[in-house]
Amino acid sequence: MQNFRYYNPTRLYFGRGVVEHLPEAMNGTRRVLMVYGGGSIKRSGAYDDVVQALRQAEIEMVEFPGIEPNPRVGTVRRAIQEARAREVDAVLAVGGGSAIDAAKGIAVGAKSEADIWDIVMGRAEPASALPLYTVLTLAATGSEMNKNSVLTNEATAEKYGWSSEWAYPRASFLDPYYTRTVPKDHTVYGIVDMMSHIFEQYFHTVDNTPVTDRQAEGVLAAIIETAPKLVANLEDLKLRETILFAGTVALNGTLSMGVIGDWATHNIEHAVSALFDIPHAAGLAILFPHWMRHVHHVRPKRWVNLATRVFGLDPSGKDDEELALEAIDWLADFWRGLGAPSRLSDFGIGEAHVEAIVEKAMARRGPFGQFKTLTADDVRTIVRNAL
Amino acid sequence: MQNFRYYNPTRLYFGRGVVEHLPEAMNGTRRVLMVYGGGSIKRSGAYDDVVQALRQAEIEMVEFPGIEPNPRVGTVRRAIQEARAREVDAVLAVGGGSAIDAAKGIAVGAKSEADIWDIVMGRAEPASALPLYTVLTLAATGSEMNKNSVLTNEATAEKYGWSSEWAYPRASFLDPYYTRTVPKDHTVYGIVDMMSHIFEQYFHTVDNTPVTDRQAEGVLAAIIETAPKLVANLEDLKLRETILFAGTVALNGTLSMGVIGDWATHNIEHAVSALFDIPHAAGLAILFPHWMRHVHHVRPKRWVNLATRVFGLDPSGKDDEELALEAIDWLADFWRGLGAPSRLSDFGIGEAHVEAIVEKAMARRGPFGQFKTLTADDVRTIVRNAL
Repeated sequence: MQNFRYYNPTRLYFGRGVVEHLPEAMNGTRRVLMVYGGGSIKRSGAYDDVVQALRQAEIEMVEFPGIEPNPRVGTVRRAIQEARAREVDAVLAVGGGSAIDAAKGIAVGAKSEADIWDIVMGRAEPASALPLYTVLTLAATGSEMNKNSVLTNEATAEKYGWSSEWAYPRASFLDPYYTRTVPKDHTVYGIVDMMSHIFEQYFHTVDNTPVTDRQAEGVLAAIIETAPKLVANLEDLKLRETILFAGTVALNGTLSMGVIGDWATHNIEHAVSALFDIPHAAGLAILFPHWMRHVHHVRPKRWVNLATRVFGLDPSGKDDEELALEAIDWLADFWRGLGAPSRLSDFGIGEAHVEAIVEKAMARRGPFGQFKTLTADDVRTIVRNAL
Repeated sequence: MQNFRYYNPTRLYFGRGVVEHLPEAMNGTRRVLMVYGGGSIKRSGAYDDVVQALRQAEIEMVEFPGIEPNPRVGTVRRAIQEARAREVDAVLAVGGGSAIDAAKGIAVGAKSEADIWDIVMGRAEPASALPLYTVLTLAATGSEMNKNSVLTNEATAEKYGWSSEWAYPRASFLDPYYTRTVPKDHTVYGIVDMMSHIFEQYFHTVDNTPVTDRQAEGVLAAIIETAPKLVANLEDLKLRETILFAGTVALNGTLSMGVIGDWATHNIEHAVSALFDIPHAAGLAILFPHWMRHVHHVRPKRWVNLATRVFGLDPSGKDDEELALEAIDWLADFWRGLGAPSRLSDFGIGEAHVEAIVEKAMARRGPFGQFKTLTADDVRTIVRNAL
């Protein structure tokens, strides 16, 4: 294992009706900035439940709707102004990863001298934050129980992740009931997103990590046995529950202990969605199998374990490479079977855009990826294969 | 899944040499009560490394050695007096679960009006605690990353667990190197202890828990593939590393999310070791297979999963009950093969002692256990079968 530090102070409330405990978790809050996207939280019932809980506790709400998918730093800056002007003493995100990622920027930015984009870019360090709470309504990003956030600078078409202990939610409330109204496409995107998060952690080159690896395999297996049933029964609350919980575990740090994640595919996808504003997980569904094919010769046994323990493939008569390639095809078929896209051209992205994507992906740090370091040539190959 | 709350603020430092970060974690501490058992931490090198780290940071040490296995409330009370008299501002446990469990009592007791045994018995609530840090030198109890502690009242021969958010270590330091000198018997006890912790969580009756169950199965599989190798190569640091990490994951709350643990076997074992002062995990190794045989008809599929996914048994031609009983025999053989005891009579416990054990086990709460509620008759049967 790699030497590591783990710290995650987020208080998780999971299950039907847990939003009633919002006031006790927010004890001491007088006025809260309530951050959300559009109407989905009203359709799901989350909005009404949150409003009722806050009213009963006499916590004043300042509403800030309009957080976009791939949330923009301009929106975050406006919300920071609002938080300061209205002197809120907490931020509450109600929604999915976009609302929560934006709320992290708002909570940190409201207590920092520096501009939030300077914090995203690592040019300034946060030293404080407003207390942050979340009510999750979409199973996907895991942002509800980690210190990460991804923001987009719409002026420069840059999309980057940042991370700070100040960005941990104090408490997050996960009620599967609020996810029952998520439509099929976003349900599938969420499943692809959480599986991708596990793959980014599972494909590492660190030696002697059976405890973490076996847990990652277990969570993947649980998602795989649940996902097709859920896509066929979108209102089944038990299936929603499993997927909601899996999304949190996928990226709350449990599956990173002692390993070094890869995150190359995320980096390429961020370049794609910064330029073309496609759904993040649509990009991941398209790119991941191509990244996998490009690196399948690294650590053959890891692919064999994935094929046999997680995907249930029969290894007999196959060498490691055959099994690796079969596993990758299996995954691509599995995602396509759920309804995920499989080609960048489905979003109008073609050969003419390849160089812009490569340039954007290489811009921040040069060659990237831990499982295999990708150069511009590697990225070009992966993106071309994904067209 | 069961509705649940999860919260675990312990900062984990894992790997070779992490004790050098002790001063930054203890930032602001002037004088610390250093709690440990006997000479094992001197043989392992942990003592010297801790002393050096504290000296460099100019943190004054008040040493409190002599914590016994099955730590006693009388010892904890004396340490609380010492902590108050010397006005320490933190507690540092160096050792295994006994030192840490005692240190939790000391940290909480030093800041409470109530006697620590009243807190153990739930007659008083802690409202504060001294900051607690741990340097773990034995892979076993998981106490380094949870809020639980087990103390023994030597005056009344009672041994009970208690739990408080105030008992979470602020930070715990896990260096596999310090566990290389643990002798074979305690290495095996630690393995039995952590596997038992997972079983206590895995054998539940809650519906729809694949994410947690699969993780539990994965950690068990990692322990099972590592343990026999470690027992044959006690100084292998990679094997030590896996087992050290597994012990933490086994009881840091990850494997309890959404389930309701059983803990009946622990309750019976606490009765045994309160009366006879045998090693906790020796009692678990003896009792667990007999508890399993007594309840093997509950949730047949769970036993099938354990048999096939974790123990690798071949299900062909067997019905669920045959497979369950084969799995239980397999586990008993596995533990015996590592060198664990399998009979209470190995410790001089016989028929004459059965009623005292039953009475002690039933004393606190009456019938107990979630997977199957055990009456006095059930406990009598299990204990008799284990003689």
